[in-house]
Amino acid sequence: MTGWQTHGSRTAYENEWITVREDRVTRPDGAAALYGVVELRNAAVFMVAVTDADEVVLVDLFRYATGTASVEVPAGGSDGEDLLLAAQRELREETGLQAGRWDALGSMWALNGVCRAREHVFLARDLRPVAGEAMAEEGITAVRRVPWPEVLRMVRDGEIVDSETIASLLYAAIELGKVG
Amino acid sequence: MTGWQTHGSRTAYENEWITVREDRVTRPDGAAALYGVVELRNAAVFMVAVTDADEVVLVDLFRYATGTASVEVPAGGSDGEDLLLAAQRELREETGLQAGRWDALGSMWALNGVCRAREHVFLARDLRPVAGEAMAEEGITAVRRVPWPEVLRMVRDGEIVDSETIASLLYAAIELGKVG
Repeated sequence: MTGWQTHGSRTAYENEWITVREDRVTRPDGAAALYGVVELRNAAVFMVAVTDADEVVLVDLFRYATGTASVEVPAGGSDGEDLLLAAQRELREETGLQAGRWDALGSMWALNGVCRAREHVFLARDLRPVAGEAMAEEGITAVRRVPWPEVLRMVRDGEIVDSETIASLLYAAIELGKVG
Repeated sequence: MTGWQTHGSRTAYENEWITVREDRVTRPDGAAALYGVVELRNAAVFMVAVTDADEVVLVDLFRYATGTASVEVPAGGSDGEDLLLAAQRELREETGLQAGRWDALGSMWALNGVCRAREHVFLARDLRPVAGEAMAEEGITAVRRVPWPEVLRMVRDGEIVDSETIASLLYAAIELGKVG
Protein backbone atom coordinates (compact mmCIF):
# COMPACT_ATOMS: atom_id res chain seq x y z
CA MET A 1 0.00 0.00 0.00
CA THR A 2 2.48 2.59 -1.14
CA GLY A 3 -0.05 4.64 -3.11
CA TRP A 4 2.21 4.66 -6.19
CA GLN A 5 1.50 2.80 -9.41
CA THR A 6 4.17 2.15 -12.04
CA HIS A 7 2.88 1.72 -15.60
CA GLY A 8 6.11 1.48 -17.53
CA SER A 9 9.81 2.15 -17.42
CA ARG A 10 12.60 3.04 -19.83
CA THR A 11 16.35 3.44 -19.47
CA ALA A 12 16.93 7.13 -20.10
CA TYR A 13 20.70 7.11 -19.60
CA GLU A 14 23.38 4.70 -18.50
CA ASN A 15 27.11 4.53 -18.08
CA GLU A 16 29.52 2.31 -16.20
CA TRP A 17 28.39 3.65 -12.81
CA ILE A 18 24.77 4.73 -13.04
CA THR A 19 21.51 4.03 -14.80
CA VAL A 20 18.77 6.62 -15.03
CA ARG A 21 15.43 4.85 -15.17
CA GLU A 22 12.39 6.90 -16.11
CA ASP A 23 9.10 5.43 -14.88
CA ARG A 24 5.59 6.39 -15.93
CA VAL A 25 3.72 6.53 -12.64
CA THR A 26 0.48 7.48 -10.99
CA ARG A 27 1.28 9.34 -7.82
CA PRO A 28 -0.58 8.82 -4.54
CA ASP A 29 -2.59 11.98 -5.29
CA GLY A 30 -3.81 10.37 -8.54
CA ALA A 31 -1.74 12.51 -10.90
CA ALA A 32 0.13 10.98 -13.84
CA ALA A 33 3.84 11.78 -13.77
CA LEU A 34 7.30 10.73 -14.88
CA TYR A 35 9.74 9.70 -12.13
CA GLY A 36 13.44 9.63 -12.96
CA VAL A 37 15.38 7.33 -10.64
CA VAL A 38 19.19 7.33 -10.64
CA GLU A 39 20.35 3.80 -9.84
CA LEU A 40 23.92 3.27 -8.69
CA ARG A 41 25.12 -0.02 -10.18
CA ASN A 42 27.07 -1.06 -7.11
CA ALA A 43 26.69 -0.43 -3.41
CA ALA A 44 29.27 1.83 -1.79
CA VAL A 45 31.27 1.18 1.37
CA PHE A 46 32.40 3.78 3.93
CA MET A 47 35.05 3.02 6.50
CA VAL A 48 35.49 4.88 9.78
CA ALA A 49 38.99 3.77 10.68
CA VAL A 50 39.92 4.65 14.27
CA THR A 51 43.46 4.41 15.63
CA ASP A 52 44.44 3.15 19.07
CA ALA A 53 44.96 6.84 19.97
CA ASP A 54 41.27 7.51 19.14
CA GLU A 55 41.99 9.37 15.90
CA VAL A 56 39.87 9.03 12.76
CA VAL A 57 41.62 8.39 9.44
CA LEU A 58 40.50 10.95 6.84
CA VAL A 59 41.52 11.36 3.21
CA ASP A 60 41.76 14.48 1.07
CA LEU A 61 40.61 14.26 -2.51
CA PHE A 62 39.09 16.27 -5.34
CA ARG A 63 35.50 15.55 -6.33
CA TYR A 64 34.85 16.14 -10.01
CA ALA A 65 31.06 16.11 -9.68
CA THR A 66 31.00 19.00 -7.22
CA GLY A 67 34.17 20.68 -8.46
CA THR A 68 35.53 20.88 -4.92
CA ALA A 69 38.22 19.45 -2.70
CA SER A 70 36.79 17.25 0.04
CA VAL A 71 37.90 15.66 3.31
CA GLU A 72 36.22 12.30 3.79
CA VAL A 73 36.38 8.91 5.41
CA PRO A 74 37.82 6.31 3.03
CA ALA A 75 35.12 4.96 0.73
CA GLY A 76 34.55 3.29 -2.59
CA GLY A 77 32.38 1.11 -4.74
CA SER A 78 31.82 -2.52 -3.88
CA ASP A 79 32.13 -3.61 -7.51
CA GLY A 80 29.49 -6.17 -6.63
CA GLU A 81 31.87 -8.13 -4.38
CA ASP A 82 31.42 -9.06 -0.73
CA LEU A 83 30.95 -5.84 1.23
CA LEU A 84 33.52 -6.50 3.93
CA LEU A 85 36.12 -7.51 1.33
CA ALA A 86 35.34 -4.30 -0.56
CA ALA A 87 35.76 -2.28 2.62
CA GLN A 88 39.09 -3.96 3.38
CA ARG A 89 40.35 -3.43 -0.17
CA GLU A 90 39.30 0.22 -0.33
CA LEU A 91 40.82 1.02 3.06
CA ARG A 92 44.09 -0.58 1.96
CA GLU A 93 44.12 1.17 -1.43
CA GLU A 94 43.22 4.61 -0.10
CA THR A 95 45.24 4.68 3.13
CA GLY A 96 47.76 1.81 3.04
CA LEU A 97 46.16 0.43 6.22
CA GLN A 98 44.67 -2.87 7.25
CA ALA A 99 42.51 -3.46 10.30
CA GLY A 100 42.46 -6.31 12.77
CA ARG A 101 38.90 -5.60 13.86
CA TRP A 102 35.92 -4.84 11.65
CA ASP A 103 32.33 -4.04 12.60
CA ALA A 104 29.45 -3.47 10.20
CA LEU A 105 27.65 -0.42 11.62
CA GLY A 106 24.71 0.04 9.29
CA SER A 107 23.35 0.38 5.79
CA MET A 108 21.77 3.52 4.44
CA TRP A 109 20.26 5.08 1.32
CA ALA A 110 21.65 8.32 -0.12
CA LEU A 111 19.60 11.05 -1.79
CA ASN A 112 16.51 8.85 -1.69
CA GLY A 113 14.21 11.36 -3.34
CA VAL A 114 16.04 10.81 -6.59
CA CYS A 115 18.50 7.94 -6.20
CA ARG A 116 18.59 4.27 -5.44
CA ALA A 117 22.05 4.27 -3.88
CA ARG A 118 22.91 1.70 -1.23
CA GLU A 119 25.68 2.51 1.22
CA HIS A 120 27.26 0.39 3.95
CA VAL A 121 29.26 1.76 6.87
CA PHE A 122 32.04 -0.08 8.67
CA LEU A 123 34.15 0.62 11.72
CA ALA A 124 37.79 -0.48 11.39
CA ARG A 125 40.07 -0.80 14.41
CA ASP A 126 43.45 -2.33 15.32
CA LEU A 127 45.00 -0.54 12.35
CA ARG A 128 48.44 -1.30 10.97
CA PRO A 129 50.28 -0.44 7.75
CA VAL A 130 50.17 -2.89 4.87
CA ALA A 131 53.75 -3.75 3.93
CA GLY A 132 54.77 -2.23 0.62
CA GLU A 133 51.45 -0.58 -0.11
CA ALA A 134 51.75 2.74 -1.92
CA MET A 135 49.07 5.36 -1.40
CA ALA A 136 48.87 6.98 -4.81
CA GLU A 137 45.53 5.48 -5.65
CA GLU A 138 42.32 7.09 -6.79
CA GLY A 139 43.17 10.76 -6.52
CA ILE A 140 43.85 10.75 -2.77
CA THR A 141 46.17 13.68 -2.07
CA ALA A 142 46.63 13.19 1.67
CA VAL A 143 45.79 10.82 4.50
CA ARG A 144 45.34 12.33 7.96
CA ARG A 145 44.78 10.99 11.45
CA VAL A 146 42.51 13.43 13.24
CA PRO A 147 41.46 13.26 16.91
CA TRP A 148 37.69 12.92 17.42
CA PRO A 149 37.15 16.40 18.93
CA GLU A 150 38.89 17.92 15.91
CA VAL A 151 36.79 15.80 13.52
CA LEU A 152 33.61 17.10 15.14
CA ARG A 153 34.93 20.65 14.93
CA MET A 154 35.62 20.13 11.22
CA VAL A 155 32.00 19.08 10.68
CA ARG A 156 30.70 22.03 12.68
CA ASP A 157 32.94 24.53 10.88
CA GLY A 158 32.23 23.25 7.37
CA GLU A 159 35.62 21.65 6.71
CA ILE A 160 33.97 18.25 6.27
CA VAL A 161 30.96 18.60 3.95
CA ASP A 162 30.50 15.13 2.50
CA SER A 163 27.11 13.94 3.73
CA GLU A 164 28.05 10.26 3.75
CA THR A 165 31.17 10.98 5.78
CA ILE A 166 29.09 12.92 8.30
CA ALA A 167 26.51 10.13 8.53
CA SER A 168 29.26 7.52 8.90
CA LEU A 169 30.75 9.50 11.77
CA LEU A 170 27.43 9.40 13.64
CA TYR A 171 27.24 5.61 13.29
CA ALA A 172 30.78 5.37 14.68
CA ALA A 173 30.13 7.88 17.47
CA ILE A 174 27.13 5.80 18.58
CA GLU A 175 29.10 2.54 18.44
CA LEU A 176 31.99 4.06 20.36
CA GLY A 177 29.74 5.57 23.04
CA LYS A 178 30.61 9.16 22.16
CA VAL A 179 27.04 10.41 21.83
CA GLY A 180 24.03 10.09 24.07
CA MET B 1 45.32 22.05 -10.03
CA THR B 2 42.57 19.49 -9.91
CA GLY B 3 44.19 17.21 -12.47
CA TRP B 4 40.95 16.93 -14.45
CA GLN B 5 40.33 18.44 -17.87
CA THR B 6 36.86 18.89 -19.33
CA HIS B 7 36.69 18.95 -23.13
CA GLY B 8 32.97 19.06 -23.72
CA SER B 9 29.59 18.46 -22.15
CA ARG B 10 26.13 17.40 -23.22
CA THR B 11 22.80 17.11 -21.44
CA ALA B 12 22.11 13.38 -21.45
CA TYR B 13 18.80 13.52 -19.55
CA GLU B 14 16.69 16.08 -17.76
CA ASN B 15 13.40 16.35 -15.96
CA GLU B 16 11.84 18.79 -13.53
CA TRP B 17 14.20 17.78 -10.71
CA ILE B 18 17.48 16.61 -12.18
CA THR B 19 19.82 17.07 -15.12
CA VAL B 20 22.32 14.42 -16.11
CA ARG B 21 25.32 16.09 -17.69
CA GLU B 22 27.82 13.91 -19.50
CA ASP B 23 31.28 15.44 -19.77
CA ARG B 24 34.15 14.30 -21.96
CA VAL B 25 37.13 14.45 -19.63
CA THR B 26 40.77 13.62 -19.26
CA ARG B 27 41.26 12.08 -15.85
CA PRO B 28 44.22 12.88 -13.59
CA ASP B 29 45.86 9.63 -14.74
CA GLY B 30 45.72 10.88 -18.33
CA ALA B 31 42.95 8.57 -19.52
CA ALA B 32 40.08 9.85 -21.66
CA ALA B 33 36.70 9.13 -20.12
CA LEU B 34 33.05 10.13 -19.94
CA TYR B 35 31.82 11.46 -16.58
CA GLY B 36 28.09 11.54 -15.94
CA VAL B 37 27.13 14.08 -13.29
CA VAL B 38 23.61 14.14 -11.85
CA GLU B 39 22.77 17.75 -11.02
CA LEU B 40 19.91 18.46 -8.65
CA ARG B 41 18.15 21.61 -9.88
CA ASN B 42 17.50 22.98 -6.42
CA ALA B 43 19.25 22.73 -3.11
CA ALA B 44 17.52 20.69 -0.42
CA VAL B 45 16.86 21.68 3.19
CA PHE B 46 16.83 19.34 6.23
CA MET B 47 15.34 20.40 9.53
CA VAL B 48 16.22 18.87 12.87
CA ALA B 49 13.30 20.14 14.93
CA VAL B 50 13.80 19.63 18.66
CA THR B 51 11.03 20.06 21.23
CA ASP B 52 11.41 21.65 24.65
CA ALA B 53 11.34 18.09 26.03
CA ASP B 54 14.44 17.26 23.92
CA GLU B 55 12.60 15.12 21.40
CA VAL B 56 13.37 15.11 17.67
CA VAL B 57 10.48 15.46 15.22
CA LEU B 58 10.58 12.65 12.65
CA VAL B 59 8.28 11.91 9.74
CA ASP B 60 7.29 8.61 8.16
CA LEU B 61 6.99 8.45 4.40
CA PHE B 62 7.37 6.16 1.43
CA ARG B 63 10.30 6.71 -0.93
CA TYR B 64 9.52 5.76 -4.49
CA ALA B 65 13.16 5.74 -5.63
CA THR B 66 14.20 3.11 -3.10
CA GLY B 67 10.82 1.37 -2.87
CA THR B 68 10.92 1.54 0.91
CA ALA B 69 9.24 3.24 3.84
CA SER B 70 11.55 5.66 5.60
CA VAL B 71 11.74 7.57 8.88
CA GLU B 72 13.41 10.93 8.37
CA VAL B 73 13.81 14.45 9.58
CA PRO B 74 11.52 16.85 7.70
CA ALA B 75 13.14 17.93 4.42
CA GLY B 76 12.38 19.27 1.01
CA GLY B 77 13.50 21.20 -2.01
CA SER B 78 14.31 24.88 -1.78
CA ASP B 79 12.60 25.60 -5.10
CA GLY B 80 15.34 28.18 -5.55
CA GLU B 81 13.96 30.39 -2.77
CA ASP B 82 15.73 31.66 0.32
CA LEU B 83 16.96 28.63 2.25
CA LEU B 84 15.59 29.60 5.65
CA LEU B 85 12.19 30.41 4.14
CA ALA B 86 12.27 27.02 2.42
CA ALA B 87 13.12 25.32 5.71
CA GLN B 88 10.29 27.12 7.50
CA ARG B 89 7.79 26.27 4.77
CA GLU B 90 8.78 22.60 4.58
CA LEU B 91 8.67 22.16 8.35
CA ARG B 92 5.18 23.69 8.42
CA GLU B 93 3.91 21.64 5.48
CA GLU B 94 5.31 18.33 6.70
CA THR B 95 4.67 18.61 10.44
CA GLY B 96 2.26 21.50 11.05
CA LEU B 97 4.91 23.15 13.23
CA GLN B 98 6.62 26.49 13.29
CA ALA B 99 9.75 27.35 15.22
CA GLY B 100 10.68 30.45 17.21
CA ARG B 101 14.40 29.77 16.92
CA TRP B 102 16.33 28.73 13.82
CA ASP B 103 20.03 27.97 13.43
CA ALA B 104 21.80 27.11 10.18
CA LEU B 105 24.07 24.18 11.09
CA GLY B 106 25.90 23.45 7.89
CA SER B 107 25.84 22.74 4.18
CA MET B 108 26.86 19.46 2.64
CA TRP B 109 27.10 17.58 -0.66
CA ALA B 110 25.33 14.25 -1.15
CA LEU B 111 26.66 11.32 -3.17
CA ASN B 112 29.50 13.45 -4.48
CA GLY B 113 31.06 10.75 -6.63
CA VAL B 114 28.13 11.02 -8.98
CA CYS B 115 25.94 13.97 -7.97
CA ARG B 116 26.07 17.69 -7.59
CA ALA B 117 23.46 17.90 -4.84
CA ARG B 118 23.62 20.74 -2.33
CA GLU B 119 21.99 20.23 1.07
CA HIS B 120 21.52 22.62 3.97
CA VAL B 121 20.82 21.58 7.54
CA PHE B 122 18.88 23.64 10.07
CA LEU B 123 18.11 23.28 13.76
CA ALA B 124 14.60 24.42 14.71
CA ARG B 125 13.62 25.05 18.34
CA ASP B 126 10.81 26.73 20.29
CA LEU B 127 8.28 24.69 18.33
CA ARG B 128 4.56 25.37 18.29
CA PRO B 129 1.66 24.23 16.09
CA VAL B 130 0.62 26.40 13.18
CA ALA B 131 -3.09 27.18 13.58
CA GLY B 132 -5.26 25.36 11.06
CA GLU B 133 -2.41 23.59 9.30
CA ALA B 134 -3.29 20.11 8.10
CA MET B 135 -0.55 17.50 7.80
CA ALA B 136 -1.63 15.60 4.72
CA GLU B 137 1.12 16.96 2.55
CA GLU B 138 3.68 15.19 0.42
CA GLY B 139 3.06 11.59 1.35
CA ILE B 140 3.83 11.98 5.05
CA THR B 141 2.00 9.18 6.85
CA ALA B 142 2.97 10.02 10.44
CA VAL B 143 4.79 12.65 12.49
CA ARG B 144 6.54 11.46 15.65
CA ARG B 145 8.36 13.13 18.51
CA VAL B 146 11.18 10.83 19.55
CA PRO B 147 13.54 11.33 22.51
CA TRP B 148 17.21 11.65 21.53
CA PRO B 149 18.36 8.32 23.03
CA GLU B 150 15.62 6.56 21.08
CA VAL B 151 16.62 8.39 17.87
CA LEU B 152 20.20 7.20 18.29
CA ARG B 153 18.96 3.66 18.94
CA MET B 154 16.91 3.85 15.72
CA VAL B 155 20.05 4.76 13.76
CA ARG B 156 22.06 1.99 15.39
CA ASP B 157 19.35 -0.61 14.83
CA GLY B 158 18.66 0.29 11.21
CA GLU B 159 15.25 1.89 11.71
CA ILE B 160 16.55 5.21 10.36
CA VAL B 161 18.46 4.56 7.11
CA ASP B 162 18.27 7.89 5.27
CA SER B 163 21.85 9.12 5.01
CA GLU B 164 20.91 12.80 5.02
CA THR B 165 18.81 12.33 8.15
CA ILE B 166 21.73 10.60 9.87
CA ALA B 167 24.14 13.36 8.83
CA SER B 168 21.69 16.05 9.96
CA LEU B 169 21.43 14.38 13.36
CA LEU B 170 25.21 14.59 13.83
CA TYR B 171 25.19 18.32 13.05
CA ALA B 172 22.43 18.77 15.65
CA ALA B 173 24.14 16.54 18.22
CA ILE B 174 27.28 18.65 17.90
CA GLU B 175 25.36 21.93 18.21
CA LEU B 176 23.43 20.64 21.22
CA GLY B 177 26.55 19.36 22.98
CA LYS B 178 25.49 15.72 22.85
CA VAL B 179 28.69 14.38 21.31
CA GLY B 180 32.32 14.87 22.17
